[in-house]
Amino acid sequence: MNKKRIAVMGAAGYTGGELIRLLSLHEKVEIVKATSRSNCGKKVSDVHRNLQGFTDLCFTDEPVETIPEDTDLVFLALPHSIPMNVVPELMDRTRMIDLSGDYRLADVNVYHKYYREHASPHLIDRFVYGLTEFNRSDIKKAENVANPGCFPTGSLLALGPLARENMLSGNVVIDAKTGSSGSGATPGPGAHHPERSADLRAYKVLEHQHQPEIEQELRRYNQGDFDLTFVTHSVPLVRGIFITAYVFTDEKLPHDELCGIYQKYYGEEKFVRMVDQARCNVVKNTNFCDISLHSSGKKVVITAALDNLVKGASGTAVQNMNLMLNFPETEALMHPGAYP
Amino acid sequence: MNKKRIAVMGAAGYTGGELIRLLSLHEKVEIVKATSRSNCGKKVSDVHRNLQGFTDLCFTDEPVETIPEDTDLVFLALPHSIPMNVVPELMDRTRMIDLSGDYRLADVNVYHKYYREHASPHLIDRFVYGLTEFNRSDIKKAENVANPGCFPTGSLLALGPLARENMLSGNVVIDAKTGSSGSGATPGPGAHHPERSADLRAYKVLEHQHQPEIEQELRRYNQGDFDLTFVTHSVPLVRGIFITAYVFTDEKLPHDELCGIYQKYYGEEKFVRMVDQARCNVVKNTNFCDISLHSSGKKVVITAALDNLVKGASGTAVQNMNLMLNFPETEALMHPGAYP
Amino acid sequence: MNKKRIAVMGAAGYTGGELIRLLSLHEKVEIVKATSRSNCGKKVSDVHRNLQGFTDLCFTDEPVETIPEDTDLVFLALPHSIPMNVVPELMDRTRMIDLSGDYRLADVNVYHKYYREHASPHLIDRFVYGLTEFNRSDIKKAENVANPGCFPTGSLLALGPLARENMLSGNVVIDAKTGSSGSGATPGPGAHHPERSADLRAYKVLEHQHQPEIEQELRRYNQGDFDLTFVTHSVPLVRGIFITAYVFTDEKLPHDELCGIYQKYYGEEKFVRMVDQARCNVVKNTNFCDISLHSSGKKVVITAALDNLVKGASGTAVQNMNLMLNFPETEALMHPGAYP
Amino acid sequence: MNKKRIAVMGAAGYTGGELIRLLSLHEKVEIVKATSRSNCGKKVSDVHRNLQGFTDLCFTDEPVETIPEDTDLVFLALPHSIPMNVVPELMDRTRMIDLSGDYRLADVNVYHKYYREHASPHLIDRFVYGLTEFNRSDIKKAENVANPGCFPTGSLLALGPLARENMLSGNVVIDAKTGSSGSGATPGPGAHHPERSADLRAYKVLEHQHQPEIEQELRRYNQGDFDLTFVTHSVPLVRGIFITAYVFTDEKLPHDELCGIYQKYYGEEKFVRMVDQARCNVVKNTNFCDISLHSSGKKVVITAALDNLVKGASGTAVQNMNLMLNFPETEALMHPGAYP
Repeated sequence: MNKKRIAVMGAAGYTGGELIRLLSLHEKVEIVKATSRSNCGKKVSDVHRNLQGFTDLCFTDEPVETIPEDTDLVFLALPHSIPMNVVPELMDRTRMIDLSGDYRLADVNVYHKYYREHASPHLIDRFVYGLTEFNRSDIKKAENVANPGCFPTGSLLALGPLARENMLSGNVVIDAKTGSSGSGATPGPGAHHPERSADLRAYKVLEHQHQPEIEQELRRYNQGDFDLTFVTHSVPLVRGIFITAYVFTDEKLPHDELCGIYQKYYGEEKFVRMVDQARCNVVKNTNFCDISLHSSGKKVVITAALDNLVKGASGTAVQNMNLMLNFPETEALMHPGAYP
Repeated sequence: MNKKRIAVMGAAGYTGGELIRLLSLHEKVEIVKATSRSNCGKKVSDVHRNLQGFTDLCFTDEPVETIPEDTDLVFLALPHSIPMNVVPELMDRTRMIDLSGDYRLADVNVYHKYYREHASPHLIDRFVYGLTEFNRSDIKKAENVANPGCFPTGSLLALGPLARENMLSGNVVIDAKTGSSGSGATPGPGAHHPERSADLRAYKVLEHQHQPEIEQELRRYNQGDFDLTFVTHSVPLVRGIFITAYVFTDEKLPHDELCGIYQKYYGEEKFVRMVDQARCNVVKNTNFCDISLHSSGKKVVITAALDNLVKGASGTAVQNMNLMLNFPETEALMHPGAYP
Repeated sequence: MNKKRIAVMGAAGYTGGELIRLLSLHEKVEIVKATSRSNCGKKVSDVHRNLQGFTDLCFTDEPVETIPEDTDLVFLALPHSIPMNVVPELMDRTRMIDLSGDYRLADVNVYHKYYREHASPHLIDRFVYGLTEFNRSDIKKAENVANPGCFPTGSLLALGPLARENMLSGNVVIDAKTGSSGSGATPGPGAHHPERSADLRAYKVLEHQHQPEIEQELRRYNQGDFDLTFVTHSVPLVRGIFITAYVFTDEKLPHDELCGIYQKYYGEEKFVRMVDQARCNVVKNTNFCDISLHSSGKKVVITAALDNLVKGASGTAVQNMNLMLNFPETEALMHPGAYP
Repeated sequence: MNKKRIAVMGAAGYTGGELIRLLSLHEKVEIVKATSRSNCGKKVSDVHRNLQGFTDLCFTDEPVETIPEDTDLVFLALPHSIPMNVVPELMDRTRMIDLSGDYRLADVNVYHKYYREHASPHLIDRFVYGLTEFNRSDIKKAENVANPGCFPTGSLLALGPLARENMLSGNVVIDAKTGSSGSGATPGPGAHHPERSADLRAYKVLEHQHQPEIEQELRRYNQGDFDLTFVTHSVPLVRGIFITAYVFTDEKLPHDELCGIYQKYYGEEKFVRMVDQARCNVVKNTNFCDISLHSSGKKVVITAALDNLVKGASGTAVQNMNLMLNFPETEALMHPGAYP
């Protein structure tokens, strides 16, 4: 069988590097193009040093015209607000998986508020929201997928089953923690080692752009009203998102029943594991999201741990690609993490 | 003036070490005894290496009878459940500040549930709860102080002003994060470097022994009912507690008004600083608790950062000693942290 | 083809866990037994949480008699001094790869000095020293392999080419640094997170048990005399060994010539990469040893970075197993690390 | 007594912040000016958050003319190559302590080679090299001091006593390790948290600008010839320099004799402590340099641990100021570190 031809735009960042790493483990695809404006001409393995010996690719420049006509799928691993200018030119020429926030929000006004003015709002509805575990059948048929944000991935996997059962009401609190790789490969004050490595702080409190994304998706399932509070924290991890979600149910919810609900939605899932204690260390470098359930009376606490660069970005993107190109869903993704 | 004579029991642990460090900066006291069963005979500075050159003390064994009669104050930096056997023998012989949980909970049944059977419940009401900022006048007159737990210190400083204004109602959520030094100086799986340093996990979810302590103190002030949810997390910091508290008020609360409430209670406080962004890195090794306020409509998010070994334990203990012995409250405690 | 049957003794430690992880990626073997005295009866994936979903094995107790007769190869991932009592019973019944130091030192008196009295010295010469890159042909024919120590692996890969060219003379200095996972899975003061994570210290200075192992192997190749100085340091990494080796040559050595020597020995090696700058972060979780060369006049500095649990232990062990069982040498080992 | 008037130029960096922190503990000086081009106008405590409540200073712009005439001493905490343009204008107007490398190297050609062209080479001999422990009497009389680099401070304290005894000969190897704060407050790839926190690498191998500085000072004392090899490493500490120095003596050197030599030079020193095991964790945030001695036959290994921002920069600078202004040498500097 001929390998499918894949391009990665914005391939020099961390999610770009992870895409190339995962695709290098994939037997049914080949990367035909990896673009990077700032690293144009350099060997991919000179930037992603872990790939030394695994790829001979060089970064090319980024004009969309250079994406070959016969490319089967393009990953857009570009910064927010870049894809909205690139997508119009690629639309209908190739399949796309966009890892930015540009096509996740159905309401363009919300995008305006949390990001900036949108350059191609008419194309938003050409994208399917790519949370694999809840949108599998749509993704399989999709030409274009808006890959979820890292916090939304963990938050939605944590709360999705309750939303599907319409059990969210009143206050829903998501206390989210993230490692430094979520800030990307470009050095900046928030990820400066001397300041980050003994620090913990909240940021963008009540103003994070992932809040409307989470809310949009939860409301897709949960019919009743609820009030979401979402706060993000920087912690001194490199890889990892940890979600602590607090739900207050209308009726007492026996723990067995709670577990049954999650079993119902995740019993067959390959990359969601129900565990006693979700831990970032256990899922790092993997496509797993580990989830733990705790409850008492009408109080439910769900914790979820995932790797922001894999399950929170590039891993889910490859999982979606597998669906879109009709490959086994776990291809290139089913490896245990190294511990410790 | 003669220096006051101080003893530290359980002086080989981390809080013991911090007590000796802080007291070595104190011009009005001298340490006459530092006990440690397991390090009996060793030089203090051979265990607390940072104190090389600052003290000639050696650890002595722990029988209570060996505490000199003329000791002005004893710090009990012993593990939970030890003080309740030591306190009866010291009662009325000397002032005591107990850093364990043994005399914090007014209701002995709650102690039974979260700790174990209490050996001297009749003495619980001989202790004043030592949250300096809210109990100052009682502490000044106290013979015995039950020093607050590390999580309660941060949680109560974060929520105390709202409780005093009777503004807690409905759901109150405290999402707490702690560094590894909170586990103490004895090596164990939870603080094993290979496993802790890239990990984040929740533990004792909905079952932590600090929950009833926090609740007891909040209810002392807040007349109306509320429902507290408290979850603790291990993060890869060494020093630091970070509290994210979520409150939902009955009425919309303008941000200015919120700030005014905290200003009212903390405007004169030396060790509580209202800041834009509370950060663990900024308060490490200090007696400060930094607090930030965020709000939107009826939603209030308060964050607090403190050093668990200083403001969360030994620093507050020295602050209380200063009050009890009629010294300036800031003596030995007013130093800027080193940053980064 | 039938899968080869593999047993792992001491499977609950970090090297045991890594063996099981790597073997789970191996298509030509199956693990028939994983022993652990302290975790006997537990599921392997309850101890090595990263393996949840990847193995159904349970730990069994450790009596040697329970190792099935038809086992093709046994990995001994036991603490030093245990294998010397186990090996006699397994000898000639099955192939063995011992990851401890028990059968590495040809001179039993040296073992006595650095470890303890040896229980089965007559079997030492039944083991081949398992540094794959230099002993490949012997390992292929071996029934029993003594897998190298972590520091020796890095030190010998760094210095081996010069030793083979008989270029070591005068002072040879190895300044070695190791992460905390080298201390094993049992918590102890040296790897206690509060103390390790901001620390750097030298330990066992001039007395480390790996010194005679390194010296023995270097002298096997280097005919002339030299004086080796070896100092080990604890650094706040989890995984990683970094070797800085200093060599002073008799004659000026042009840099090109130096590179040529390393190219000669490593040009065909799959797991040794000559790079501009060896870095622990790049090789973590992989079987690669990255090596960089620096020189000036008669002065040569070689740096080497490897993962102590993989290339420094379990990875090399699997590489040796592949040779012994006539599999492709890279089977289960050729994966890029995740970065960052 | 009137307080001495101090200015800090380049006060927004890490060494600037540490100078202000230490000077805020000093009872005999006041800071009259803190300059920063990029933070001009901002409050000092908005940049150095640890100083909230400890200073009301604002950063001012940097023209030298604005340094008041009656300033008693100016600290130049500016980047390399800036002071050489500033110093000419301040010369003879005020005392100066320069923390950069601009006036440390007596031979301007060496400066050219390792830094760049020098703008004011005629003023180099107006500066005294500020290694307090060896140059105390000259510093006391000095108008201008070139404060030592961080690596030279540790290296010279480690090797100085042997140099003074003329015992360096043949190969002398310094393997140096540094934390990330040595890279300064400006974010860059080398100190990017995702890449630094699990990394260890050598850098500027055999080319570091501190090599000639170390060599110059050692040769000032050691009459015989020796060959210095100096390699620096980045380690995932924030604060800390660790020096491992290897010396090979001509004659066997009994350990007692070795200890006697160090006792001779450091017995009276307040900030150099001879310890069993030098450790970065123990000296962080302090002005101490801890030194350990190891030897065997003709082989000597000296390890030294210090905080690069304090003893390796601002602490030594304040120590020198104390000498220059005739204050007690330990003023503002004699505090135990916090551990862990």
